Amino acid sequence: MNRQWLYAKQPQGRIGPDTFQWTETAIPVPRDGEALVRTRMLSLDPANRAWMMGKTYRDALEPGQVMSGFAIGEVIESRTPGLAKGDVVEGDWGWQDYAALPARRLTKRTIDAPLDLLIGPLSVTGLTAYFGLLEVGRPKPGDTVLVSAAAGAVGTMVGQIARLAGCRVVGTAGGQDKCDWLMRELGFDAAIDYKAGGLRRAIAAAAPNGIDVYFDNTGGPALEAALSLMNLRGRIVCCGNVSQYDVEKPAPGPMAVPGLVVTKRLRLEGFIVMDFYDRRAEAESRLAAWVKEGKIKAIVDIVDGLDHAPEALIGLFEGRNRGKCAVRVS
Amino acid sequence: MNRQWLYAKQPQGRIGPDTFQWTETAIPVPRDGEALVRTRMLSLDPANRAWMMGKTYRDALEPGQVMSGFAIGEVIESRTPGLAKGDVVEGDWGWQDYAALPARRLTKRTIDAPLDLLIGPLSVTGLTAYFGLLEVGRPKPGDTVLVSAAAGAVGTMVGQIARLAGCRVVGTAGGQDKCDWLMRELGFDAAIDYKAGGLRRAIAAAAPNGIDVYFDNTGGPALEAALSLMNLRGRIVCCGNVSQYDVEKPAPGPMAVPGLVVTKRLRLEGFIVMDFYDRRAEAESRLAAWVKEGKIKAIVDIVDGLDHAPEALIGLFEGRNRGKCAVRVS
Repeated sequence: MNRQWLYAKQPQGRIGPDTFQWTETAIPVPRDGEALVRTRMLSLDPANRAWMMGKTYRDALEPGQVMSGFAIGEVIESRTPGLAKGDVVEGDWGWQDYAALPARRLTKRTIDAPLDLLIGPLSVTGLTAYFGLLEVGRPKPGDTVLVSAAAGAVGTMVGQIARLAGCRVVGTAGGQDKCDWLMRELGFDAAIDYKAGGLRRAIAAAAPNGIDVYFDNTGGPALEAALSLMNLRGRIVCCGNVSQYDVEKPAPGPMAVPGLVVTKRLRLEGFIVMDFYDRRAEAESRLAAWVKEGKIKAIVDIVDGLDHAPEALIGLFEGRNRGKCAVRVS
Repeated sequence: MNRQWLYAKQPQGRIGPDTFQWTETAIPVPRDGEALVRTRMLSLDPANRAWMMGKTYRDALEPGQVMSGFAIGEVIESRTPGLAKGDVVEGDWGWQDYAALPARRLTKRTIDAPLDLLIGPLSVTGLTAYFGLLEVGRPKPGDTVLVSAAAGAVGTMVGQIARLAGCRVVGTAGGQDKCDWLMRELGFDAAIDYKAGGLRRAIAAAAPNGIDVYFDNTGGPALEAALSLMNLRGRIVCCGNVSQYDVEKPAPGPMAVPGLVVTKRLRLEGFIVMDFYDRRAEAESRLAAWVKEGKIKAIVDIVDGLDHAPEALIGLFEGRNRGKCAVRVS
C-alpha cells in the first residue's frame, strides 16, 4: 500500500491535525519516461505552510491533493534512461510512501553523504543559506550579520557560514535555551530571545557597530527592528516571512519601508534557491567539505514515521525543532 | 541686507506659513578659504520637508537655522583659489540672498545652460532620475516602467528617460489634467490619477504585462499597488516617500513586504544621488544633449521672489507644480 497524507482543508490561523487527512491507496505504476520512487526522508519547511495561503513561486495547494513537500527517495523501478534502480533522488512528491514521476521532476543525488544531510544541510536548506547569504547579502569580513530564526534549518547554516566569512554573527531565536545553544555550540557571537521583549534594544546592544547584512527568515518585528539598526548601504536578504505564515491576520508591513530604505540606501532582495541551481554543484561541494572538516555543524532534527508528519510540521511553527526538521519515512 | 527665511518650528502635520520666519541680517563677510555667493535660484524639493522630521542622510533641521535648500548662485567675492568672481556654483546654503561658504561646500557649474535648467533638470533632479532609473532600476527595452509623482521634478525626467530606454511608461499623478498632460506632452504611454480611486486596478490595466521597474517617489498606496503588480525579479527604485512627509501620522508599511519580495524575488533599493557623483559629468552631458536635441522636455515651474518660497513649498505638497519647482531669487 501507498500511505499518504492529503492536504484536507485550508487552515484559518494555525495549522492543526485537521489540516491533513490520512489515506491509503495502491502503489502507483510508472509509465514510460517515469521512475517509481520510494520515499526515505521528508523535508518539513515553513514554506509548506505558505503554499496553503495562495500562489507563491508555485501554485497554491488545493484541498484533496497529496500534501506537497520536498523529499529524498530511492528509485525502485525506472522506465527512464537517466535513472536506475537504487539511485538516490530528490524532488517534491509530497507526503507519501511512493510516487511515480517523470525524470524531469527528479534530481539524482550523487554526493556521498548520509540521508539526514542530503535532506537539508547539503540540499535546499544549506543552499538557501549559502546563496542567500553570500550572493544576495554579500558580507565582507568584519561585517555584522543578523539572522532571524537563527536556530532553524536555514538560520543555523547562515550563522555558521557568516562566521566562516569573518563576520560578527547575531541571531534571534525563541527562548533562552536556544540562544545559549547557538552561542555555545554554533559559535554565534550573540543570540537574542525574541520572546523576552525589548527586541530592538537587545539587537542594538549585540550589534554595537550596526547591522550590515540582515538575513530575514521571519519578517515581522525582527525585520522592523533590523531596518532601524541597518548601516548605510546595508543588505536585507528576504528569504522568508515565517512570522506571518501561521497566523489568522497578517501584521501590517514595516513602517520603515520605504523611508529608511531611501535614507540609508538599503537593498532588500528576495530570492528562491532554485534561481541559483546552475551553481549548485560548486555550492554543495563547499558545504560538504565544511561539514566534513567540522567547520560547520549540520543540525538535523529527525522525526520517525510518516504518520508523525503533521505533528512535526505543527511543532515547527511552535518552535520545537533545532536545525533541519525532517521525517524519516523508510 | 541679507534676507533670510528661518526654519521656525517643527510642523505637526502639514507645513504652513508659521513653519518659517522672515528675517534680515547683514551680508556675511567671507573668510580665508571661503567665497561669498549671491543666490540666483532656490530648488524646492520634497526632501526639504523630510529634513524637518529627523535625521536622514543629513542632520535634521533645527528651529532657528536658516531654512536649508539646494541653490544656484554666483560668486561675488572669492577668497579661495578654485573659485573666481562670476563663477556659477551650486550648494546647500538655504533660503537667503547671500552666504559665505568654504570651497568644499560649493560645486562650480561649467555646463553652458540657463539657470532654470541648472537648478533641476541638469542638476540634482535630472541626475536623480538618471542614476536611479538606469543604475538602480536597470530597465531593459520592452520593460514596463511605473513612476509615481510622475508630473513632479523627478517623475517627468524618469518617464522621459524610460521612454528613451525603449520602455513602456506608466505614471501616477494627482488629477486628470496632469495625467492628460503627461501623455500628450511627455510621451507617457499611460497616466493614472491616483485621486480618482481604484489605483491598483487602473495600474493593472495600464500595465497589462506587469511592472518590471517601479520608480517610487511616494511610498504609500502607490508602492502597495506596485508591489502586487511587479513581475518576477522586478526592481523597485526607492527614491522618496513623499506621501508620508507632510502628514501627522505616517501610514503603516506595505503589507507585501517581505512576503511578495520573497516570492517574486524583488529587489527594493534606496539611493541618494550623491552616491553617483563620481559619474556626474558623464550623466550631465547626456542629459544636456537630450534636452538640446528635444528628446527630453525639461519642465520647470518657477516662482519669482525669495519672499514666496514658503508658499511655493506648501504648494509643492498640494501638488500645484508641474516639473521642477524653483524660486528665482535674483
